[in-house]
Amino acid sequence: MNFCSQCGKSLKQEVPEGDNRLRYVCSQCSTIHYENPKVIVGCLPVHEDQILLCKRAIKPRLGLWTLPAGFLENGETLAEGAARETLEEANARVSMGGLYTLFSLPHISQVYAFFLAELADLDFYPGEESLETKLFSKEKIPWEELAFPVISETLKYYFSDREENSLQIRYLDHLFDRK
Amino acid sequence: MNFCSQCGKSLKQEVPEGDNRLRYVCSQCSTIHYENPKVIVGCLPVHEDQILLCKRAIKPRLGLWTLPAGFLENGETLAEGAARETLEEANARVSMGGLYTLFSLPHISQVYAFFLAELADLDFYPGEESLETKLFSKEKIPWEELAFPVISETLKYYFSDREENSLQIRYLDHLFDRK
Repeated sequence: MNFCSQCGKSLKQEVPEGDNRLRYVCSQCSTIHYENPKVIVGCLPVHEDQILLCKRAIKPRLGLWTLPAGFLENGETLAEGAARETLEEANARVSMGGLYTLFSLPHISQVYAFFLAELADLDFYPGEESLETKLFSKEKIPWEELAFPVISETLKYYFSDREENSLQIRYLDHLFDRK
Repeated sequence: MNFCSQCGKSLKQEVPEGDNRLRYVCSQCSTIHYENPKVIVGCLPVHEDQILLCKRAIKPRLGLWTLPAGFLENGETLAEGAARETLEEANARVSMGGLYTLFSLPHISQVYAFFLAELADLDFYPGEESLETKLFSKEKIPWEELAFPVISETLKYYFSDREENSLQIRYLDHLFDRK
């Protein structure tokens, strides 16, 4: 961040009065430009005993499998964002269930939220950001080719909870290395 | 948003290739400037049958009561942010419990997360953003002077769950008017 998005003048780094962190502050109009974590939302789309995964057509992790997910947009709820991403990445319509996993990833300043969802039909097909969309049973999940730890963790919890017949919301923040 | 924070040139609004929303895009260096929801984290600090509330010393809702909460910072987990805000606003040290309520507030593009927490001691006192910090039992909660709907909802759920002896994580996104 080099320039003020309000007035276009150069930014300096300083700790504003009453604050305790370095922020980007405009040298001209004094606007403080905060940087905050981003929220990623996705679905765990279920059909009978199978889960819908998408093979990524974009970087990072191109060619690896993921649950449909992406950045939450202004003006939408977490659940709406998760349903939208599922439609965009897999052209899949779902009946939304509850929140399932919530991850804090402080090393990349991201928060991930996955929702349970039932596929409304089987007419899914790859969106622009996917190479392939496919249903997998537990035994067929490509565990070694999953794109992100939050995906494998969410799937592991799901299959384990399903066996015990007790799906529960989980908040997880100590799974990953701090860098 | 008027100017590119990368190169300082003027921004235009357009739908980038492969996207479906208007974004701010730099007319010079083509950087896309996304705007995303912000995350607010807080605690429900408990001592025996009482809850610690803070009277706000800042706008908005100056003079009204709130649970200690504030914007999640880059590089911290949701739980770390909630503990930090509790220390900053009430100089209160807590033993963190689990996630309790998660709210989507699409009309203001915010996500709120409250954690259960036990006060580690009673040496709390107002931080810079608080006029007063005080423990309230259920009967004494100033229900008409609470700062935000997410505060009253979280407190109502807590007292109700406590009576039924079943504290459970709740995701809530349809409590509030869309504007």
